[in-house]
Amino acid sequence: MVEERIWTAALVVIGDEILSGRTQDKNVAQIAQWLNVQGIRLAEVRIVADRQEAIVEAVNALRVRNDYLFTTGGIGPTHDDITVDAIAAALGVGVVHHPGAVAVLERYYATRGGATEARLRMARVPEGAELIENRMSGAPGIRIGNLFIMAGVPHITAGMLDALTGTLEGGRPVVSGTIGSWAPESEIADLLAAAERAHEGVAIGSYPFFREGRTGANFVIRSPDADQVERCMAELAVALAAAGYPTVAGGI
Amino acid sequence: MVEERIWTAALVVIGDEILSGRTQDKNVAQIAQWLNVQGIRLAEVRIVADRQEAIVEAVNALRVRNDYLFTTGGIGPTHDDITVDAIAAALGVGVVHHPGAVAVLERYYATRGGATEARLRMARVPEGAELIENRMSGAPGIRIGNLFIMAGVPHITAGMLDALTGTLEGGRPVVSGTIGSWAPESEIADLLAAAERAHEGVAIGSYPFFREGRTGANFVIRSPDADQVERCMAELAVALAAAGYPTVAGGI
Repeated sequence: MVEERIWTAALVVIGDEILSGRTQDKNVAQIAQWLNVQGIRLAEVRIVADRQEAIVEAVNALRVRNDYLFTTGGIGPTHDDITVDAIAAALGVGVVHHPGAVAVLERYYATRGGATEARLRMARVPEGAELIENRMSGAPGIRIGNLFIMAGVPHITAGMLDALTGTLEGGRPVVSGTIGSWAPESEIADLLAAAERAHEGVAIGSYPFFREGRTGANFVIRSPDADQVERCMAELAVALAAAGYPTVAGGI
Repeated sequence: MVEERIWTAALVVIGDEILSGRTQDKNVAQIAQWLNVQGIRLAEVRIVADRQEAIVEAVNALRVRNDYLFTTGGIGPTHDDITVDAIAAALGVGVVHHPGAVAVLERYYATRGGATEARLRMARVPEGAELIENRMSGAPGIRIGNLFIMAGVPHITAGMLDALTGTLEGGRPVVSGTIGSWAPESEIADLLAAAERAHEGVAIGSYPFFREGRTGANFVIRSPDADQVERCMAELAVALAAAGYPTVAGGI
């Protein structure tokens, strides 16, 4: 049997507003779900402050050990937007105005007061970069090698992900199935572990909840092999029912 | 002038369910806000998979360079709950059943079917650890030195944070003020940078939005010095108004 190649990505979320608790991050879940459709696994995430050393450290640690690296945040026109400079420093390249980005911004701001110097800051890219289309607002995203520099505002990031859909090489997407049961986790822990052991390449996650005064859990069965997921889920449902915990397909 | 001591914490979020995009993390924002009230800054976050090597690497990297380290997730009774073993490995200590935790679980499960072996897995702690009270469900959190091992389910984590309130040494909490304006960021970027430069120790974050077909931004002024925040916010409001962008206190 040939070992299946697993494609991985990492994400660096850049922003004091996430670390202060002011803003609830939405990009981790959004990018994770999008990556899975591309057959790429989100392997690790770091959330760092708007400080160049912090960004450089995270980018350099993660880009060498993953197939792709995404960043979100810090690509606007204000003083706290330092992502482009930090990534250029991490890669050891200069920062240039990208002619394509200048053209995009000049077109976008033609009817909005003109492309001022402050606005053209958003055309600055690490040397050697390409653009990622942004249909939502002026400033494009940036691609340099396996590194993707995205917006912080989630709906703008969503548009950039759309523009990238189908362009990244990946493997088989992970398929998942969920069943739920009003079972206390601690009652069925052995049974779950046995089900995971019996199906190679399958990972079972157990997510407890407390509702209506009762304890239950949802079980998420994940594998790139859809047949394995089906088989494992069916056998687990039988085992849980036999233990006195009937299951609900799709989760509770 | 004596340099003000800044207390920092890091957070390791442990869980495949966050990295797959299945579950939206809530603990980063919740812990960040709680830490700020304690006078401690959340300096960095890593989200890692349910794999021992990944947990060990993150814990060892972050605990030495922060005053406190928190983890969330992976302390239940099932096979995917490996946090205690991974942290014990990171610290180079063994894993023991904590007598206090055994007592808590025996009491909790006395009327719920008894403290089975699977349930007593939740009494396992790295050697030398103390317990963090959990008023929500059976299994306590765990403290070992500057390391705090918390639940993954946000409302259980919230209860554990309550139990820790006021027990951690910190500095002055960061105070923040927000003003908003219907100003395109790129129009007022220089003005913002100047306001930040003019007030030592103050950080201004600029958070753009697009609403009702118009562009605006909220500006968050942060410092441990409440007077500095007040002054900077007042001067920024005047400068923005003079540039043609009246402001709204508290943000838009």
